[in-house]
Amino acid sequence: MKHYDKMDDLIERALHEDVNGYDCTTEAIFTPDQRSEAILIAKSDGIIAGLEVFQRVFKCLDKDSTIEFFFNDGDRVQGGDRILRIKGRTHALLVGERTALNLIQRMSGIATQTQACVRCVEGTKAKIVDTRKTAPGLRFLDKMAIRMGGGYNHRMGLYDAAMIKDNHITAAGGIKNAVERVRANVSHMTKIEVEVQTLEDLETAIESGADVVMLDNMSLAEVKKAVDHAAGRVLLEASGNITLDCVKEVAQTGVDIISIGALTHSVLALDLSFKIISLNL
Amino acid sequence: MKHYDKMDDLIERALHEDVNGYDCTTEAIFTPDQRSEAILIAKSDGIIAGLEVFQRVFKCLDKDSTIEFFFNDGDRVQGGDRILRIKGRTHALLVGERTALNLIQRMSGIATQTQACVRCVEGTKAKIVDTRKTAPGLRFLDKMAIRMGGGYNHRMGLYDAAMIKDNHITAAGGIKNAVERVRANVSHMTKIEVEVQTLEDLETAIESGADVVMLDNMSLAEVKKAVDHAAGRVLLEASGNITLDCVKEVAQTGVDIISIGALTHSVLALDLSFKIISLNL
Amino acid sequence: MKHYDKMDDLIERALHEDVNGYDCTTEAIFTPDQRSEAILIAKSDGIIAGLEVFQRVFKCLDKDSTIEFFFNDGDRVQGGDRILRIKGRTHALLVGERTALNLIQRMSGIATQTQACVRCVEGTKAKIVDTRKTAPGLRFLDKMAIRMGGGYNHRMGLYDAAMIKDNHITAAGGIKNAVERVRANVSHMTKIEVEVQTLEDLETAIESGADVVMLDNMSLAEVKKAVDHAAGRVLLEASGNITLDCVKEVAQTGVDIISIGALTHSVLALDLSFKIISLNL
Amino acid sequence: MKHYDKMDDLIERALHEDVNGYDCTTEAIFTPDQRSEAILIAKSDGIIAGLEVFQRVFKCLDKDSTIEFFFNDGDRVQGGDRILRIKGRTHALLVGERTALNLIQRMSGIATQTQACVRCVEGTKAKIVDTRKTAPGLRFLDKMAIRMGGGYNHRMGLYDAAMIKDNHITAAGGIKNAVERVRANVSHMTKIEVEVQTLEDLETAIESGADVVMLDNMSLAEVKKAVDHAAGRVLLEASGNITLDCVKEVAQTGVDIISIGALTHSVLALDLSFKIISLNL
Amino acid sequence: MKHYDKMDDLIERALHEDVNGYDCTTEAIFTPDQRSEAILIAKSDGIIAGLEVFQRVFKCLDKDSTIEFFFNDGDRVQGGDRILRIKGRTHALLVGERTALNLIQRMSGIATQTQACVRCVEGTKAKIVDTRKTAPGLRFLDKMAIRMGGGYNHRMGLYDAAMIKDNHITAAGGIKNAVERVRANVSHMTKIEVEVQTLEDLETAIESGADVVMLDNMSLAEVKKAVDHAAGRVLLEASGNITLDCVKEVAQTGVDIISIGALTHSVLALDLSFKIISLNL
Amino acid sequence: MKHYDKMDDLIERALHEDVNGYDCTTEAIFTPDQRSEAILIAKSDGIIAGLEVFQRVFKCLDKDSTIEFFFNDGDRVQGGDRILRIKGRTHALLVGERTALNLIQRMSGIATQTQACVRCVEGTKAKIVDTRKTAPGLRFLDKMAIRMGGGYNHRMGLYDAAMIKDNHITAAGGIKNAVERVRANVSHMTKIEVEVQTLEDLETAIESGADVVMLDNMSLAEVKKAVDHAAGRVLLEASGNITLDCVKEVAQTGVDIISIGALTHSVLALDLSFKIISLNL
Repeated sequence: MKHYDKMDDLIERALHEDVNGYDCTTEAIFTPDQRSEAILIAKSDGIIAGLEVFQRVFKCLDKDSTIEFFFNDGDRVQGGDRILRIKGRTHALLVGERTALNLIQRMSGIATQTQACVRCVEGTKAKIVDTRKTAPGLRFLDKMAIRMGGGYNHRMGLYDAAMIKDNHITAAGGIKNAVERVRANVSHMTKIEVEVQTLEDLETAIESGADVVMLDNMSLAEVKKAVDHAAGRVLLEASGNITLDCVKEVAQTGVDIISIGALTHSVLALDLSFKIISLNL
Repeated sequence: MKHYDKMDDLIERALHEDVNGYDCTTEAIFTPDQRSEAILIAKSDGIIAGLEVFQRVFKCLDKDSTIEFFFNDGDRVQGGDRILRIKGRTHALLVGERTALNLIQRMSGIATQTQACVRCVEGTKAKIVDTRKTAPGLRFLDKMAIRMGGGYNHRMGLYDAAMIKDNHITAAGGIKNAVERVRANVSHMTKIEVEVQTLEDLETAIESGADVVMLDNMSLAEVKKAVDHAAGRVLLEASGNITLDCVKEVAQTGVDIISIGALTHSVLALDLSFKIISLNL
Repeated sequence: MKHYDKMDDLIERALHEDVNGYDCTTEAIFTPDQRSEAILIAKSDGIIAGLEVFQRVFKCLDKDSTIEFFFNDGDRVQGGDRILRIKGRTHALLVGERTALNLIQRMSGIATQTQACVRCVEGTKAKIVDTRKTAPGLRFLDKMAIRMGGGYNHRMGLYDAAMIKDNHITAAGGIKNAVERVRANVSHMTKIEVEVQTLEDLETAIESGADVVMLDNMSLAEVKKAVDHAAGRVLLEASGNITLDCVKEVAQTGVDIISIGALTHSVLALDLSFKIISLNL
Repeated sequence: MKHYDKMDDLIERALHEDVNGYDCTTEAIFTPDQRSEAILIAKSDGIIAGLEVFQRVFKCLDKDSTIEFFFNDGDRVQGGDRILRIKGRTHALLVGERTALNLIQRMSGIATQTQACVRCVEGTKAKIVDTRKTAPGLRFLDKMAIRMGGGYNHRMGLYDAAMIKDNHITAAGGIKNAVERVRANVSHMTKIEVEVQTLEDLETAIESGADVVMLDNMSLAEVKKAVDHAAGRVLLEASGNITLDCVKEVAQTGVDIISIGALTHSVLALDLSFKIISLNL
Repeated sequence: MKHYDKMDDLIERALHEDVNGYDCTTEAIFTPDQRSEAILIAKSDGIIAGLEVFQRVFKCLDKDSTIEFFFNDGDRVQGGDRILRIKGRTHALLVGERTALNLIQRMSGIATQTQACVRCVEGTKAKIVDTRKTAPGLRFLDKMAIRMGGGYNHRMGLYDAAMIKDNHITAAGGIKNAVERVRANVSHMTKIEVEVQTLEDLETAIESGADVVMLDNMSLAEVKKAVDHAAGRVLLEASGNITLDCVKEVAQTGVDIISIGALTHSVLALDLSFKIISLNL
Repeated sequence: MKHYDKMDDLIERALHEDVNGYDCTTEAIFTPDQRSEAILIAKSDGIIAGLEVFQRVFKCLDKDSTIEFFFNDGDRVQGGDRILRIKGRTHALLVGERTALNLIQRMSGIATQTQACVRCVEGTKAKIVDTRKTAPGLRFLDKMAIRMGGGYNHRMGLYDAAMIKDNHITAAGGIKNAVERVRANVSHMTKIEVEVQTLEDLETAIESGADVVMLDNMSLAEVKKAVDHAAGRVLLEASGNITLDCVKEVAQTGVDIISIGALTHSVLALDLSFKIISLNL
């Protein structure tokens, strides 16, 4: 609800991009008052995500369109499952189809891959989180899809949490100085994470009062040592080229957080099909 | 140049989404007047695409930033290649890094996959084209990346060409009626494509004056028959789950156009790295 | 429906321009809950066009306003005819009146003049089409009005079809090169038109594969010769200072398309009157 | 200068409407760095108006374009006159040409007709003023053109001056009440005009303290009587179907203000031509 | 009604600024369909102003929310008074609370201070008016609050009335020239005010035809002399550091208008409290 | 730098609100190319804040304007001090004056009051922080001014940190549940603050893992007890009607954070004067 303006704004731009005022085929064939019924079908297995944005595309085009959902966001669907049924003006259904599909297929693809990772780490305390490697303009939806897949969000952007990286450390003259300078500037409500490559730096980061430490591209063995060393004094995040193949082992080191950029930068769209089942209701 | 407003608009929204006015880490460490130098390095092989939008992200943040390109859009890069060198305010480099990378890595991923397909069809007359299955809000860049990878664009959206699909045909009472009704409504400058499943429909579409016919999810053998049947009377487009594995065979049928949705709906980002090489110039 | 966002956006800007938040006269006299009834009357003969945008102006100001139409877009009205009746808040009626009239009077003026031309060419195969010489910001409505008057649209802008003019030809080194270079860049769904002054150029354009050829400012005799020469091999468009006086003769040459800039660049507004017939319902 | 944001906003929308990111013809023929030179030529006599907005269209597309003006806004030009010379990127010149012409031809058409009226009333004290019957979205430019043609502006919209019309008078229970209620609500900086049909109402309006009285659709004789009756106690405005044919006689009645809707609602575009004189500087 | 777009635009920006898509606390605790009831209570005495904008904040978040008002804009409230009761989705109530309060507390603070001044000048003919010293982006609401407090508005901005100040006078070479030059440029519907420091300048301004004269930072005695000197020939405005302490004396000089910048530049927010009285209706 | 787009957006809206395209007085008197010089002078003592936004107002109107600063943001100025000198087009100086002053006077007012509080708590560990009680649309600047006055920011909005208040606690069934539910939803980078009224609740909040606890409207004695009880286990924030009079005593309790709404909801603008010192450079 609170995010409707953001979602609607995105939808309007997406529709404008595709429609630019005019579907020259559909307007030649259908009159504005004709109504149809359509269904959304899964064509492969996965996690469905993005039902609200899907619905709002059609609401933007026909506020009287109605939709019946057979699944909720985050549910697992199988090839052949009917996900929802929608009724509305034929113009709206045909004009909105591609935009709605582009959105829900991407979100479902993200959620599906996220859940695959989440399942791998079940039984450990590790949380799967995203990164800022999202499609420009779609971060809000990309991050919603992560949560729908059972993952968690990292910071939303550069503004809502501090992340001290190598360049900041170099410029500040060391981790300790960097943490202090950031602490002296940010709100008491802002957490500070420090990126480290060694156990020494991990120790310095903890002593400097970092809230979270990111273990950057460390080997499994190094991550394990870091977990032992930190001994619960700070939240530890493993990061860097972690894939479905190795995520379980990373989690078993005892790390708190595992962040995976590929969840959003390299998305495999979930195969879904939109079928008109009744023309001219 | 003509598209700068569109590109800048997209960049501003992407930056706003990531920055929201404030990089709380960088502003605590660097003063506004510090300047740095960075390079962009390829970490795997592929086609680079999106150099202009990459540059404009930094121009938006520091209009005096300067950039030196070592490659052009569409060039093949290899892991380790330096793609460009940029100098500008440290604030701008650190704030713009992620947005710029998100854009260029997606575009380069699209171009890389497109060129792989284009190479497969060399020696045939087939052109590789995209679809409307793009990331909402990014169609313009997705379609630029296709061209940079050696592919061609299909229509930009619902507005610039007519595509008569099954629902239109059903509603109009057949292909002939559908083509006539569309022809009677659209500009004389608008092409009409008809989607068909059978040779009979192909013949009807040709006789009805379609400019292009799309062979929808036909088998290789069917496509071949369609090519023989049409005998050059119309442009033929093959479409439907065509992958790198089969694109060559499809092209060898003699079809004119091969459209591939996965080029833009399931993008594997090209791995690129942005490295500050000199802090405080 | 699909164009409502475009239309509403235009209406909001138009209302903002006229109202800027405040009708200082009406707000001093009427309370927000007073309601009135008004009619729209034709004060001269012509084609009515723009009923939807007229209605939406008032919907923007009072979503509960209701309207009853006695004519449809494209209908001929005569001086004295009641075109519609509207009920709504008095504030909305008085505040929206001028904006709604400015829009519908322009569109009706365009449709009226277009139909005059269309009538002149009845019995020939010529279609009357518009140009890009529209009022900036109003192209969408200007082009709708053309269709409501019985005309057809030329391309919507620089993006949806290619038009090769003298400068392009000079720069490319001739018509053949120009057509080839454009063909090699645009989508297979994009038509190409070439502007020519001579029969030789017409022949070259046809041989180069142009979809449409524009006969630029040719005399009647030249147009006739061009039609004979082309012999149906290409669509022919006559253009350049064609007026109501000569349009019939141009059509009788057998040309396919006649484009007339004055239809939109020099519009005579149709005289309509908005009359409150009952204050304080 | 202060209005640059308004002007630029309008230009961006106009360019977007025409270009939508892509001139598919020009981009196929010219590289981005090619530069050309063009001139603007008058093809008929009139008043030139809109040089600034003309220039800004090209500045939007190529900020390094340069322009040399041979005339100023408000100057009379004759068929064949060179109005200006512009140098810039060929892309910018070809892409901006139509938008720039659409704007300057409309403004020059308005200024030309305005000046024709202004010349008719020379020697009288009457000022020629515009109305709110402008092209939606273009009021700002339409009203600038009026001033460039030697006319004056009426109120900009509903917000900057009060105009009490028949419906307000009826609802308020007479002119006196209406003026009082408006006076009690508006700023002491807001002028109040009252529309009247009779001499009695004129007298009441004057006594009620109206700043201006509009004589609505009165005959010449009635206007003359009204002027005599008012005897300088109030500004008098004649309005209603005043054309070039009768404007002189209306002015000779001694009225202060003559408002003419047709100056902006029915514009005859001034014929101007944009010619590339040197490709590839 | 006419200003809804302006108000809604402002509300959307205010909500965006506070919410940015996500209330991370409320969304973790409440489901989207839970509904609550809340009341607005005065915690000190004053004039309530801004009920419409308060309501519209919640309408933006939950169009089905309902509100019952126990007071009208401009009413005096006392500490403990219930001002309104609202029912709606709990998400909407908690997310909109702060934005709605920020708006209504500022407006009520302005109205309260305005009415205090208005009461001081009762029995004189002086009107209390505002200035352009408003919070950027909120002028519209600030000026509404002034009217709700019983005051009047000065001009809305630089565009709707002319104000000739010292720099204009110097540049024009005296008051007479300045008034003439402005008169020769502005609409006949635009009033002209001149700022003066001496009786001589007051006389010149009157003779030059100024509609209003502002007595800039004059002492009480000087204002009195100016009133006597003008003898009703022009509207007189006193301005400059006028406070609640001296406003009565200023009014008793017989001046027409008293403008007070502090009414909007230094606002003391009225203390109001928003209390959920029933969670989970 | 990174926030220029936000700042410029705000400035454009503020200028639009005041200018609406046209300063009818200044344009009648000055030609566009006249240039002037002005200074900004303090008329009372305080902290100057907002120099950048002040400068950018004029840059928006005249990008070639130049400014020389004699003070930095956060500096103390005394009545009579020259704060800066600016040269630019006279149009720009006169048109931008009021908007620039409205912005800098508000920011300086906030900074002045903030520093007064900061000075009161010197020698204690307490930080003075703001709240979300800012002027809608101006939060970004209001919060910058707090920092310039030596204070710190609380969360920027509902999105960047969690604040569990009474309604959340009631709905969740206690503090423990509320903290757990929020923790289970938000990013590991998001801090959680809990509002408490009693020592028991403080203990529960600490045990539940709250990062910060807000002591809501507690008496000095209660705050002291809370500090003793917490014994450094959590950050403690005192809040509720804290004024300059009592802030020192509150700080002396040993609380970490003191938040004060009045710093931004009831701002006393700092008195500054903008003086043209040379017309027509």
